Amino acid sequence: MTDSLGVVTPFSIAFEKPLTLERGGTLPRYELMVETYGTLNADKSNAVLVCHALSGDHHAAGFHTDQDDKPGWWDHYIGPNKPIDTNRFFVVSLNNLGGCSGSTGPLTDNPETGAPYGPDFPEVTVSDWVESQARLADHLGIDRFAAIVGGSLGGMQAMQWAITYPERIGACVMIAAAPRLTAQNIAFNEVARQAIMRDPNFFDGHYAAHDVIPASGVGLARMVGHITYLSDIAMGEKFGRQTPRSDRDAEGANFAVEQYLRYQGQQFSHRFDANSYILMTRALDYFDPTDNERIPLAEVLRQTQCRFLVLSFTTDWRFSPARSEEIVNALIHAERPVSYTRLESTHGHDAFLIADPTYESIFKAFMDRVSDDVGATDER
Amino acid sequence: MTDSLGVVTPFSIAFEKPLTLERGGTLPRYELMVETYGTLNADKSNAVLVCHALSGDHHAAGFHTDQDDKPGWWDHYIGPNKPIDTNRFFVVSLNNLGGCSGSTGPLTDNPETGAPYGPDFPEVTVSDWVESQARLADHLGIDRFAAIVGGSLGGMQAMQWAITYPERIGACVMIAAAPRLTAQNIAFNEVARQAIMRDPNFFDGHYAAHDVIPASGVGLARMVGHITYLSDIAMGEKFGRQTPRSDRDAEGANFAVEQYLRYQGQQFSHRFDANSYILMTRALDYFDPTDNERIPLAEVLRQTQCRFLVLSFTTDWRFSPARSEEIVNALIHAERPVSYTRLESTHGHDAFLIADPTYESIFKAFMDRVSDDVGATDER
Repeated sequence: MTDSLGVVTPFSIAFEKPLTLERGGTLPRYELMVETYGTLNADKSNAVLVCHALSGDHHAAGFHTDQDDKPGWWDHYIGPNKPIDTNRFFVVSLNNLGGCSGSTGPLTDNPETGAPYGPDFPEVTVSDWVESQARLADHLGIDRFAAIVGGSLGGMQAMQWAITYPERIGACVMIAAAPRLTAQNIAFNEVARQAIMRDPNFFDGHYAAHDVIPASGVGLARMVGHITYLSDIAMGEKFGRQTPRSDRDAEGANFAVEQYLRYQGQQFSHRFDANSYILMTRALDYFDPTDNERIPLAEVLRQTQCRFLVLSFTTDWRFSPARSEEIVNALIHAERPVSYTRLESTHGHDAFLIADPTYESIFKAFMDRVSDDVGATDER
Repeated sequence: MTDSLGVVTPFSIAFEKPLTLERGGTLPRYELMVETYGTLNADKSNAVLVCHALSGDHHAAGFHTDQDDKPGWWDHYIGPNKPIDTNRFFVVSLNNLGGCSGSTGPLTDNPETGAPYGPDFPEVTVSDWVESQARLADHLGIDRFAAIVGGSLGGMQAMQWAITYPERIGACVMIAAAPRLTAQNIAFNEVARQAIMRDPNFFDGHYAAHDVIPASGVGLARMVGHITYLSDIAMGEKFGRQTPRSDRDAEGANFAVEQYLRYQGQQFSHRFDANSYILMTRALDYFDPTDNERIPLAEVLRQTQCRFLVLSFTTDWRFSPARSEEIVNALIHAERPVSYTRLESTHGHDAFLIADPTYESIFKAFMDRVSDDVGATDER
């Protein structure tokens, strides 16, 4: 018995049927970069879809090589005997459309021009992602997911699945999510976008043509994002008012937290595409199943047929427990089966990614029930 | 009886005695831009010093001309019959050293070079401001202030006064303040600084030599600052998920809050000097009367001799009520007389600037007692 998936291998799937997008525009064809873990059972009832957050990708668990020292972003929660138990479930994880980790996005060549889409990549929404994920399920022969699971923006995709395809989802897990962004949430996203757009290397998104990247702006965007992922407490515990580390560039930094943020921003700016970042933050902003309160959330959720698990974290101020509780209250009003826990954590929004025994045991108990529902057998 | 000071006139005072600064460097001479309201009584016992916050200035109350439609930044609380009652008190308000509203700062010519100081202006601290304000008091013949009052960074100056010159301050009013910044506070300041420094028009602070200003970076810095001054609730009430206004540039903005923040940033970038902004945020970061916890705050405050009023606002998350309560707890441990109220408000950190009947009545009751203490007579 091991608790790691070991080496996993991503692969790409091409979809040749055009996809018309919610906010206008069509993708004539697209590819999705995918990883799967575990084995699809004979009746194809044990599939779990994992949806990623703003800067996530398809690499959710395991390692890409024997030499990797960092596993996928949710390795704590996906693997043998883990909450999303790969001895029982067949797990599907993908890089979303518009991303920059191998799926079709701004970095991809536009078949009409032969040059990368760049800023001309059409805007995508959570509903568009759900549509592309449904086609991925079709491709894999999965009629119905035992569960669809996500944290933050990933939780919004899980919610949209339950609304759009009620008959194709057995359980919906939303962790550190919100029913839609507040003005403050949008404001922080806008600061991030402006940081990128004001970088002189942005060139209205056409930086590739100039053979540069707007690294300074993307780094700054990540700095402000990063603050909102952490709690005041976590930053206090980690950095307090300490002076910078001497083993890393500290020029002009008076405090360790300044040095840390600059470093985080710099690392991120070389791994994430600026146009993708703008597109992902806009998808977050647009998500609103109530259509600007035209339909109450409880009314929207009444059409769902799955069971729900909602989890929040006490020090998460980006999507606070109160936001999760809006979802829970709406589900109760809609008379849908929902379990909810407000988990104690000092880690802020990032808590959904971090190992924690209580989080793990509650998540696992729920997923074990899901696997019992679908008769998924432990194949150890 | 009127509740407005009417037209007030700022004036400049020159100090020719060099000022040695806490973090190194000396100003051979400097000027402070000042406004005063009310009349200094015969025994000079009724003076109140008002200290400004990050982007404030000397213009705290009244109007500069008959045509002005906007009064000074604290006009709700300074004037005839207001909490800082100019019928009783002689109010002194100044632009701090390093500012950009008329006092000596980065925009001033360096006497050694004949060119503006720019980024070579020495770093100033809250203690340096207190020293410069003490010299201002000397100049005005004020041995002792009846009260020193400030919000946010202004409250930190009031606290430092009580520590440095216990015999020169009768009452200390700290509103929406904190004993020192947390890592998260410093992180937001660092994002603001980086936004400015990464503007290609910044030129390491020497933008004046290039005849430009880093307006884009300063605007971005203001956008992120502005989010932290407002509460999630206030932004929700004001903007929610509304679409942009049609009477103002909305290019590329999907939501009103984006348009609003850009507008705020743009306005600010043309009135506030970039080097000053960096310098002011650093003064905030450095403030720490405990010298990085070498001396407990209660110990530091034991040397004070004045009475204290501490006020906080429920939705202020920049300097939350818990931060004010750290000061209150330290004062209680130090056996100093302190009154404290946690005021209900939806306005976040900005609440300290906004008219509110409860805030006003508590503030006024305290200040009336101060005026009784010093025998300030109502000269109506």
